[in-house]
Amino acid sequence: MIYLDNSATTRPYDEVIALMASIQKETFGNPSSLHQVGVLAERTMKTAREQVLSAFGIDEGSFIFTGSGTEANNLAILGTQLSQIHRTPRIITTQMEHPSVMETVLHLKELGADCQLIRLQKNGQLDEEHFASLLTENTSLVSIMTVNNEIGAVQDVVKLAAMTKANCPRALFHTDAVQALGKVPVSVRNTKIDLVSVSAHKINGPKGVGGLFIRNGVHVKPVIYGGGQENGLRSGTQNTAAIAGFGLAVQKTMAFMPDTTERMHALRKKLADGLSAIPGARVITSENPAPHIVSVAFPGLRSEILLHALESRGIYVSSGSACSSNRPHLSPTLLALGFDRKVIDSAIRFSLGIHTTEADIAEAISCVSEQTALLSGV
Amino acid sequence: MIYLDNSATTRPYDEVIALMASIQKETFGNPSSLHQVGVLAERTMKTAREQVLSAFGIDEGSFIFTGSGTEANNLAILGTQLSQIHRTPRIITTQMEHPSVMETVLHLKELGADCQLIRLQKNGQLDEEHFASLLTENTSLVSIMTVNNEIGAVQDVVKLAAMTKANCPRALFHTDAVQALGKVPVSVRNTKIDLVSVSAHKINGPKGVGGLFIRNGVHVKPVIYGGGQENGLRSGTQNTAAIAGFGLAVQKTMAFMPDTTERMHALRKKLADGLSAIPGARVITSENPAPHIVSVAFPGLRSEILLHALESRGIYVSSGSACSSNRPHLSPTLLALGFDRKVIDSAIRFSLGIHTTEADIAEAISCVSEQTALLSGV
Repeated sequence: MIYLDNSATTRPYDEVIALMASIQKETFGNPSSLHQVGVLAERTMKTAREQVLSAFGIDEGSFIFTGSGTEANNLAILGTQLSQIHRTPRIITTQMEHPSVMETVLHLKELGADCQLIRLQKNGQLDEEHFASLLTENTSLVSIMTVNNEIGAVQDVVKLAAMTKANCPRALFHTDAVQALGKVPVSVRNTKIDLVSVSAHKINGPKGVGGLFIRNGVHVKPVIYGGGQENGLRSGTQNTAAIAGFGLAVQKTMAFMPDTTERMHALRKKLADGLSAIPGARVITSENPAPHIVSVAFPGLRSEILLHALESRGIYVSSGSACSSNRPHLSPTLLALGFDRKVIDSAIRFSLGIHTTEADIAEAISCVSEQTALLSGV
Repeated sequence: MIYLDNSATTRPYDEVIALMASIQKETFGNPSSLHQVGVLAERTMKTAREQVLSAFGIDEGSFIFTGSGTEANNLAILGTQLSQIHRTPRIITTQMEHPSVMETVLHLKELGADCQLIRLQKNGQLDEEHFASLLTENTSLVSIMTVNNEIGAVQDVVKLAAMTKANCPRALFHTDAVQALGKVPVSVRNTKIDLVSVSAHKINGPKGVGGLFIRNGVHVKPVIYGGGQENGLRSGTQNTAAIAGFGLAVQKTMAFMPDTTERMHALRKKLADGLSAIPGARVITSENPAPHIVSVAFPGLRSEILLHALESRGIYVSSGSACSSNRPHLSPTLLALGFDRKVIDSAIRFSLGIHTTEADIAEAISCVSEQTALLSGV
């Protein structure tokens, strides 16, 4: 099995799986309980919170554990904007956001928010002039993803946050860093970034846990109401085993990060070069992409057909964004980038992980070459 | 260790822990992925959904997996009421709900809903006459918990749902069955119950997963926006391992249920009898309680003091509701039941689990007797 769908989800580290099992067996208490069984569970969460915060290069601010990266994005956006919806807040985002940002912003638009989309350039970068023109006085939130999940485009969120604050000191800056964590730096030290969403299962941690970094002084209201866990921002008994697994996954990922990302970059380049040499291929990854994503289209060959052909050879890739439920749709990101329907319909994403080898890449290139020849011959 | 805080959380079944580890290792795909790795993950969820639905004795309707019982309660209440808040919907609930219902209802009240609380009788049952008088034409939702987490009171939700529909055919009936699942019947077949919330970690399943049963035809809107997973009602990559663990925990719990609950009832009675014989004790469990909860007060002896004294002897119990974060507060349930401050301040809850033995109960009674004598002697 050659699993090249790591942007959809990853296989957890064995150590993470073992840690979670041990917590479920031996530290199973409710962290809200006052007795020792609860206190021990609370302690595993404290460790995990420190482990995750350290990835942000900061020892101030809070990190709120949620049930997913999606919930973290909802908390960042609804939690800061819903209470001021009557003021018609301007919310600026991009045309390439994950549905958990885009659908949340569209929900606020329905409720009356003034939502604006920053135009994209062909190379996957934002049109900064257009962005600057959108930063009006009523701007309340800017939400820009660090790494795009379909074309791997990396935005300079540090610069974009600085632009935001220079023009609108009271606006908040949020970034969805779900695809960025462990792949590109996500430090918020000495930046103007207020809110950062991340998810465990994209970095070989467990599913069912994500979280939101909140800079000190930023006021967020809950989306889920109840017992007041997570500093009142995310009620519900905490998923201690998964939270501890998240902490360990972050720690392991960050520890090996300069090496893994360098290796991934080299493999990604090899894959992109190999694929682009295949007749009919059009690599649609952005310029200077994140180290783990290669997208390619074979116009005329529908992506599901190629996906299943590769699957039959034990190679697992994705068509379109694999983070949304499996209803077919035309990717809004690729549409916004100006790709025509034939390209979008045939787009395939390869996403590398920590387990990806040179041999995997060579085999993937060879299989795509073989299968596209076979299928276009039909 | 004698763990008598099973209403706060339980130790997962070994088989559940093993299943989760195996899914994380071998079936780690994103259930939204189109390839086989995703399809296998999707299949584990399908099995779990059927396992959970079978506990409700129904093969119609849907079950939406959430990140917790709290989130399920939020989805039931916000998901049906928020979109019609402009109509000033009447929401009827009780004075003994879990914070995940109460705080959600209070949030809707702030937004303009007409919220009404059914009075409680001293025995822990609802005042049905008062309830009937509240069922006016604008009633939109009735939310009544099946089993109370502090005093173990069991409400006849089947009858209360029928009363609701007889008076207000268009109102929805929701029950928080988090403490009920596996302890009292939760079948919704041939009832007028529309929505039922449950949670895995109260029945020896994993933390981080709960869910909402939704009767066919009941319209619910999402609380979390994004990729449209869980039939559009709960976006975010599903926590497949925990979901499968939930399914298995439900299956195991229901399979052994008549026997376990009978055994628990006998142990509970023994514990209640033993505790009530201790000088100064006042058993505050409701009449005909659920099989797993005994609450007792020792007026004058603060519950935290006794809790820690018992802890030093390896016995773990709870003061107040252990499902909310650990800020001290006076229990609204006990206040509503008319208990005075001295009783509430000294309330201790013992909650039995599937692992509780006769010896545990004998030891608990003996320790409480000894510690209360020691502490009141000081």
